[in-house]
Amino acid sequence: MINKPISGFSKLSKGKKLRWIVDNFFKDPEGVAKELMSYWLLDEEKQQLLDRFSENTISNFHLPYGVAPNFLINGKSYCIPMVIEESSVVAAASNAAKYWHERGGFHAEILCTEKIGQIHFTWPGEIHQLQNCMSELRSQMLEATRDITRNMEERGGGIKDIELTDISDQTPQTYQIQVSFDTVDSMGANFINSVMEAFSKVLTDFVASRTEFKPHQHDLDIIMAILSNYTPKCLVRAWVECPVSELGSFRDFTAERLAQRFEKAVKIAKVDPYRATTHNKGIFNGIDAVVIATANDFRAVEANGHAYAAKDGQYRGLTDCEISNGIFRFWIEIPLSIGTVGGLTSLHPMARHSLELLGNPDAEELMKIIAVMGLAQNFAALRSLITTGIQKGHMKMHLHNVLASLNATEQEVAQTVNYFADQVVSYAAVRDFLLKLRSSQAKLPLS
Amino acid sequence: MINKPISGFSKLSKGKKLRWIVDNFFKDPEGVAKELMSYWLLDEEKQQLLDRFSENTISNFHLPYGVAPNFLINGKSYCIPMVIEESSVVAAASNAAKYWHERGGFHAEILCTEKIGQIHFTWPGEIHQLQNCMSELRSQMLEATRDITRNMEERGGGIKDIELTDISDQTPQTYQIQVSFDTVDSMGANFINSVMEAFSKVLTDFVASRTEFKPHQHDLDIIMAILSNYTPKCLVRAWVECPVSELGSFRDFTAERLAQRFEKAVKIAKVDPYRATTHNKGIFNGIDAVVIATANDFRAVEANGHAYAAKDGQYRGLTDCEISNGIFRFWIEIPLSIGTVGGLTSLHPMARHSLELLGNPDAEELMKIIAVMGLAQNFAALRSLITTGIQKGHMKMHLHNVLASLNATEQEVAQTVNYFADQVVSYAAVRDFLLKLRSSQAKLPLS
Repeated sequence: MINKPISGFSKLSKGKKLRWIVDNFFKDPEGVAKELMSYWLLDEEKQQLLDRFSENTISNFHLPYGVAPNFLINGKSYCIPMVIEESSVVAAASNAAKYWHERGGFHAEILCTEKIGQIHFTWPGEIHQLQNCMSELRSQMLEATRDITRNMEERGGGIKDIELTDISDQTPQTYQIQVSFDTVDSMGANFINSVMEAFSKVLTDFVASRTEFKPHQHDLDIIMAILSNYTPKCLVRAWVECPVSELGSFRDFTAERLAQRFEKAVKIAKVDPYRATTHNKGIFNGIDAVVIATANDFRAVEANGHAYAAKDGQYRGLTDCEISNGIFRFWIEIPLSIGTVGGLTSLHPMARHSLELLGNPDAEELMKIIAVMGLAQNFAALRSLITTGIQKGHMKMHLHNVLASLNATEQEVAQTVNYFADQVVSYAAVRDFLLKLRSSQAKLPLS
Repeated sequence: MINKPISGFSKLSKGKKLRWIVDNFFKDPEGVAKELMSYWLLDEEKQQLLDRFSENTISNFHLPYGVAPNFLINGKSYCIPMVIEESSVVAAASNAAKYWHERGGFHAEILCTEKIGQIHFTWPGEIHQLQNCMSELRSQMLEATRDITRNMEERGGGIKDIELTDISDQTPQTYQIQVSFDTVDSMGANFINSVMEAFSKVLTDFVASRTEFKPHQHDLDIIMAILSNYTPKCLVRAWVECPVSELGSFRDFTAERLAQRFEKAVKIAKVDPYRATTHNKGIFNGIDAVVIATANDFRAVEANGHAYAAKDGQYRGLTDCEISNGIFRFWIEIPLSIGTVGGLTSLHPMARHSLELLGNPDAEELMKIIAVMGLAQNFAALRSLITTGIQKGHMKMHLHNVLASLNATEQEVAQTVNYFADQVVSYAAVRDFLLKLRSSQAKLPLS
């Protein structure tokens, strides 16, 4: 550990950055340097592309890229790419896909596609003074951004609405310009931010020039101008349904009982925030895996979805279930602001392949695919939770992970699996057991 | 696109899975197969380890692995590993680190470390009947899990409390056993889930055997038993502070004005959910980058933090700011349930290096580092938003990404940068401009 700050680190070459890191922080500088470099892509151009996504890069972090086949969505088949490091998620998705393939598949529809940008500003005046001249301000804003919006309008999108909002009751003299957009197949962050910053300038100049305002009201203070990641009007709904009798029995549970327990589990996540958090976490296991595979921004998707889960004043589960007239129905409604053009979607080499694997969907189709994956994940997780419990499968996979990392032989694997049938699997516990096993076997010939 | 479901896909070898994928979904099967295979690790053992994390893997997804040096936290220096594909995040973190290094650095403290597990069950009885025998039930539960808890207790953790809660007012006959844990340096998911499933069995048997219950009350129905990812009592606080005068001026803004604008920006995120979502999204840009670099579970961290942001009935920003007696103070309080042992932290090859780079912290130290990164990110984002706006830097980086992917020459880069000084950067717009540029130059010798 070093306590003196380093200057000019960002200006060092990648190799020199790596050198500084291993020399200052690692016990085995040569070994670590060699390993970190072994993760570089052999194709130098592609590696440089990756390095340009971010800053101060010294290596790559690998996440497993898997696929979940057999998704039937609105009558069309998909094999969905998933990037996730957690075990069981891809397997659960694949199981749910196959299960629902035999029951009519998944259904999905877009409810609305409105994106949001905001200008936050303070102004020593009354809201009605601004309201009175909003239509003039609107025209000036639209006029000033013609160059920015032309391309987007040609693609069928653009600015949809410009509203003034008042939050001065919660923080003094503070107002907002809230703009809604259609950004078609792009997530639209760059576009929205550019428009909002241009609007800010218009707003400042506009207020400075209004003769009806008092002198001290000519100074309007822009605090910030930026898109909102919360898009409750950019919504997709996905659902499955079938007669309860066709759900099939599972282990000791009849179809009827399964359906009732499932409905109860969904209900509990609606009323208890502790359960809702875990319930939604599972949904995002599926959602993020596709979001990452297509190089969309999973932090934006997470923030949006969780804020939506809290929209009515309590944090709640994002899925719903209903059993009515013998029909089991399970659905999700979630805001998703993602793109299939722009951002990194066309830059990350694997994202391009993900999109081709999905048949090069537009943004609305990708919204449906992602929502379906969230629903599928939740279905599989709940079905497992209300029947066998999730621990059995998890522990088995984790145990095999740990055994592999400890280079266990086939015989050792068999003995360890047997021992851990009723024990909690942890890296330390498995290592200790294996060490004991090995030392007892080493002693065997001596006894 | 194929519409017939495939059977036994998960049982195919990795190579055969890849073959099926490229043959069925790609225009250029050979080229794509070759490229996807080029992302496999050369070290077969390490690749098999990665493949075992998840299922149906056919390749790896690369994310840039960068570092942010110069973080001073509680007087100790750190260079923090970050895995993120979004531009400006690592640069912003590094800038904030250096800025605060000169102002006393970051401070952080653990407020509490309680993890949560739940059994959700239905039972045809009154809550007070169960309350009356809770102490006996508690003893039986603890007794039945001695084998599971022994290791954890030796490490200083274990079961802290077992409570009965009642949600029957919201969903009929439904109750919960809520258990709090200390899982020391592990996130504890496996441990908690194992305990909760064991407790479920005890609970069922216990209720079946109570002679004071009516006959129909001997059947208690366990709906599910699992950890909660919501841990509002596993909290860390990180903060920075300095006299307002020492904040320094920035562009046209005096230190005083900067502080006031900053405080206002934080306040807006407290009162407006649209702004809060984006505000917190930026915080998680920093948090997730470290969470991934250490192979912790970012979906769990996101769900936890966002649910906490909605804890008082409205979704709010996670940071706070105060200017008092000439002192500027900025802080975050956030639940973080992460580990430095167990899970993938010791299995993912890069995670081990991340932990060594951080000086092999325990879980509490890593909680502090992660919270500081969230705070640093929010500081940098807000400072940029309230001064220059974020678009300028973003657009520049994005433009260079796109130019690189289009193999632009040095001269083309210069001309394109010049043209896009006042244009919105998008992949399509840059490509079109470059194509025009190239065709006009191709024609040049003819004119």
